[in-house]
Amino acid sequence: MCRWLAYSGAPILMSDVLYGGTNSLVDQSLHSRLGAEPTNGDGFCVGWSGAPETPGVYRSVEPAWNDENLRELSGHISSPLFFTHIRAAIGSAVQQTNCHPFRHDNWLFMHNGYINEFGTIKRDLVLAVDPSLYREIRGQADSEVLFYLALSFGLEDDPPTAVSQAIGFVEDVAEHHGVPHPFQGTVATTDGESIWAFRYSSEGKSRSLFYTTDVPSLRRLYPEREDLRGFSDDARLIVSEPLGDVAGVWNEVPESTYGVVGPGREEIEPFLPKAPSTSVPVA
Amino acid sequence: MCRWLAYSGAPILMSDVLYGGTNSLVDQSLHSRLGAEPTNGDGFCVGWSGAPETPGVYRSVEPAWNDENLRELSGHISSPLFFTHIRAAIGSAVQQTNCHPFRHDNWLFMHNGYINEFGTIKRDLVLAVDPSLYREIRGQADSEVLFYLALSFGLEDDPPTAVSQAIGFVEDVAEHHGVPHPFQGTVATTDGESIWAFRYSSEGKSRSLFYTTDVPSLRRLYPEREDLRGFSDDARLIVSEPLGDVAGVWNEVPESTYGVVGPGREEIEPFLPKAPSTSVPVA
Amino acid sequence: MCRWLAYSGAPILMSDVLYGGTNSLVDQSLHSRLGAEPTNGDGFCVGWSGAPETPGVYRSVEPAWNDENLRELSGHISSPLFFTHIRAAIGSAVQQTNCHPFRHDNWLFMHNGYINEFGTIKRDLVLAVDPSLYREIRGQADSEVLFYLALSFGLEDDPPTAVSQAIGFVEDVAEHHGVPHPFQGTVATTDGESIWAFRYSSEGKSRSLFYTTDVPSLRRLYPEREDLRGFSDDARLIVSEPLGDVAGVWNEVPESTYGVVGPGREEIEPFLPKAPSTSVPVA
Amino acid sequence: MCRWLAYSGAPILMSDVLYGGTNSLVDQSLHSRLGAEPTNGDGFCVGWSGAPETPGVYRSVEPAWNDENLRELSGHISSPLFFTHIRAAIGSAVQQTNCHPFRHDNWLFMHNGYINEFGTIKRDLVLAVDPSLYREIRGQADSEVLFYLALSFGLEDDPPTAVSQAIGFVEDVAEHHGVPHPFQGTVATTDGESIWAFRYSSEGKSRSLFYTTDVPSLRRLYPEREDLRGFSDDARLIVSEPLGDVAGVWNEVPESTYGVVGPGREEIEPFLPKAPSTSVPVA
Repeated sequence: MCRWLAYSGAPILMSDVLYGGTNSLVDQSLHSRLGAEPTNGDGFCVGWSGAPETPGVYRSVEPAWNDENLRELSGHISSPLFFTHIRAAIGSAVQQTNCHPFRHDNWLFMHNGYINEFGTIKRDLVLAVDPSLYREIRGQADSEVLFYLALSFGLEDDPPTAVSQAIGFVEDVAEHHGVPHPFQGTVATTDGESIWAFRYSSEGKSRSLFYTTDVPSLRRLYPEREDLRGFSDDARLIVSEPLGDVAGVWNEVPESTYGVVGPGREEIEPFLPKAPSTSVPVA
Repeated sequence: MCRWLAYSGAPILMSDVLYGGTNSLVDQSLHSRLGAEPTNGDGFCVGWSGAPETPGVYRSVEPAWNDENLRELSGHISSPLFFTHIRAAIGSAVQQTNCHPFRHDNWLFMHNGYINEFGTIKRDLVLAVDPSLYREIRGQADSEVLFYLALSFGLEDDPPTAVSQAIGFVEDVAEHHGVPHPFQGTVATTDGESIWAFRYSSEGKSRSLFYTTDVPSLRRLYPEREDLRGFSDDARLIVSEPLGDVAGVWNEVPESTYGVVGPGREEIEPFLPKAPSTSVPVA
Repeated sequence: MCRWLAYSGAPILMSDVLYGGTNSLVDQSLHSRLGAEPTNGDGFCVGWSGAPETPGVYRSVEPAWNDENLRELSGHISSPLFFTHIRAAIGSAVQQTNCHPFRHDNWLFMHNGYINEFGTIKRDLVLAVDPSLYREIRGQADSEVLFYLALSFGLEDDPPTAVSQAIGFVEDVAEHHGVPHPFQGTVATTDGESIWAFRYSSEGKSRSLFYTTDVPSLRRLYPEREDLRGFSDDARLIVSEPLGDVAGVWNEVPESTYGVVGPGREEIEPFLPKAPSTSVPVA
Repeated sequence: MCRWLAYSGAPILMSDVLYGGTNSLVDQSLHSRLGAEPTNGDGFCVGWSGAPETPGVYRSVEPAWNDENLRELSGHISSPLFFTHIRAAIGSAVQQTNCHPFRHDNWLFMHNGYINEFGTIKRDLVLAVDPSLYREIRGQADSEVLFYLALSFGLEDDPPTAVSQAIGFVEDVAEHHGVPHPFQGTVATTDGESIWAFRYSSEGKSRSLFYTTDVPSLRRLYPEREDLRGFSDDARLIVSEPLGDVAGVWNEVPESTYGVVGPGREEIEPFLPKAPSTSVPVA
């Protein structure tokens, strides 16, 4: 439905990752190889950490491939941690308030996939969003509601549990309404220091998700590759679809798992959604 | 906050009304005389009746004064009944889904004004929207929620009562939350045949609203005025602010009243909001 | 590079042609079958004849597939003759002034293809545009310059000769600068009554061009096809790529020919570009 | 016609200057005090120096006051030298390619004002642009042509002389065509290190232009003013209209003069346009 990319490492110009090489993320906006839709031209957004504390975001309803501002901005902004998302809209309008990553304080959140029959269960989902957060919802996208559910369930304290509860709650509400295969996709979220990335679908056939293997080995393996020189030893890329065409660069994140990348940590754990035990009322 | 215009009569090119003369509605997008804000440049929309049955809408986030498509389209589309609204956004994003008139089947609805402290009471208002209509809400605007409340309260059967109940309900919820002066503004709605226009504010100081006196007398009074020749005898304009500068053309709609214009009817009645008697639960 | 469609016949809703069936023009904006580029998402324009005399145009920089206004407008505007063009930009900005069809008085003009190495020869081409027309050039597109060359060479009096001279002049200037394969493409132009469509490339491998065979035979052949019922007996479609998947509907326009469709006329003639005999100075 | 601002000094967040205080530049987009037009809502652009060498630009066709990206980007990008321009379009389309500052290599150029009857003399002006630069012209604006004339006349070597020759040439061509009052306005240009700002009009009634007096005296005079603390001692602002409401902050640039601000230099000199002595052919 969409394609996305998350970077963490030494600060680099965002354009180095967005435009370089074959099958770059911007190339994927015009024709992705693995996406459910080949074209992801219904707007995009980049969100980047740096000074000041709140991450910056640049949103556009243009296709990424023809947005001159994206080329300018990514060619002038360096960041140690950034998210980029290109949309293939399904059902919701092409407008900036529907562009991922969504932001709340220092958190960013993006999603490739969907909540099935969202119109049917949206009202019940929105009712479970904490009333103090409710007024921050700005768009129509299923993914934004998922973000606010996760925030309501404690994303800022324990991301894996909060995302598990948010998706688990979606599955519970969907079951109540007889909606099959409620959740599909990959999700990434960050507090500006660590990145959590999830791969899961109710039916067990999830959208693809990849991360880079370590950079030093890559550099030894491919001494002639200039495109690997700019990256620091701790640089990590997490993507919905591999960039470039270098063998051995990418590891697939397994089904029903999540990974964390951050200062001094790098783990992959099983991921099993489970609605919050405190019963949330379903109308 | 905004400016709007409603026309009913023999089919005319929409541009005849939108661009002609001094202080036209498009002029008002750049500098209105009576508006709460002089500039109404945060997008606009035209909605027009005609074949086929569902009215057409053209929405844009550009200022009306510099939108070339508006000039083209209004110069090529004739209609016997159309609404035009230019926005001065307060709080919600400048995006097409926030542009008035909103549409539901053959109904259009637009509003100049606001629901006070909308963020505080939005959740309670949205909860009162009929669940079958809830999923149709596309934007963030207070006015769109008001439209869906009115639809939930029977707009299609009895517009004056439904709008009275919608505004009355807003006032009740606001009182519950301690929000003062809950509603302000003028509202117009149509089923494609008749137009209902309301002027009301909780504090009794409402935005202005005017309608044309009858055209034949006007033509006798101002035989030299070419701009009055194109209008049929039953043509009526209802506007948030007078167009042109001809004395005697405009009547002010009194505070707390509404008017109806339609085939064979033309009335002005008192308007007093009153929440639905069936109690709507407030969280 | 682009895809386009021209319709002439009894007035029909433009949406009937733009959206209906498989591989509709709007479908082609997302993934065309025969285009040089599969995606034509860099804006679009529709131009339609009707009252008043000057044709209307609606231009947008959005991809056609996600433009809600296009769906609205084409679903409410009937026309006996209209052009639609979807862009895959090569080199020039995605902005309304670069969208085809271009317009001059009652004439429309659109092009699928390119002038090779346009930057190299643009100045010489622009110098040959009649100074009284020069100031009307609004965008950067090679195709717009071609239109103004054709107008300078008498398009309004003799379209086939003027287009022949315009393309011939392009070829002469290109030869002077050592630019190979100067012209590629298909062109359509109309005065609001007749349509002239050209297929030509300097290298003899031109973009595809098709037109419908007669409608009555089609109706007899395919009595069950509802999508053929709405068309009048004299309806004609000319397209850069066939719509739908009905065998026998489409004839290919041969290389180096042009066709005319209009009241009481329907011809296909050879087309051979030739610069104007009066020598135009080349710097 | 437009409003603009140029900053040079220690790197600051662009938002500090664009949004702070009363009558900020973004405020002026909605209602300027001294502008020829109160509203400057027809797009805007910021251009900023920094690494990498070529300055970055962000262009938008939205009014500055409602562009959320401008708020984000200016709140996250620090620069030691930047230009911002808000447009009130007169005659040319509202599109990114018409937004100032224009850019050529490391040079930026912006203009508040106009070339009178530009359509009449545009062709002659464009013919004088160096053919190697001609192909870089992207928009329709008179100001962009002025920039390319200045570049053709040696802007990169001697900015005051090149701008003098460009405006002088405009005046000569205008006289040849009988166009009165050919040039009006204020111009700023930069190579990324120094800023040159010009105030001139053929009729001697030029648009206003102001620059800040030295910051240390300001700080002593207004010890309580927090908004002056962020600026370095060598910080300079040049604006078409004063920001804020602090007396003594602003000096007016006199008629027919230009100023230079740069490393170790700060001068004001007389400015008298004079066409290049080598005669440029006028058709």
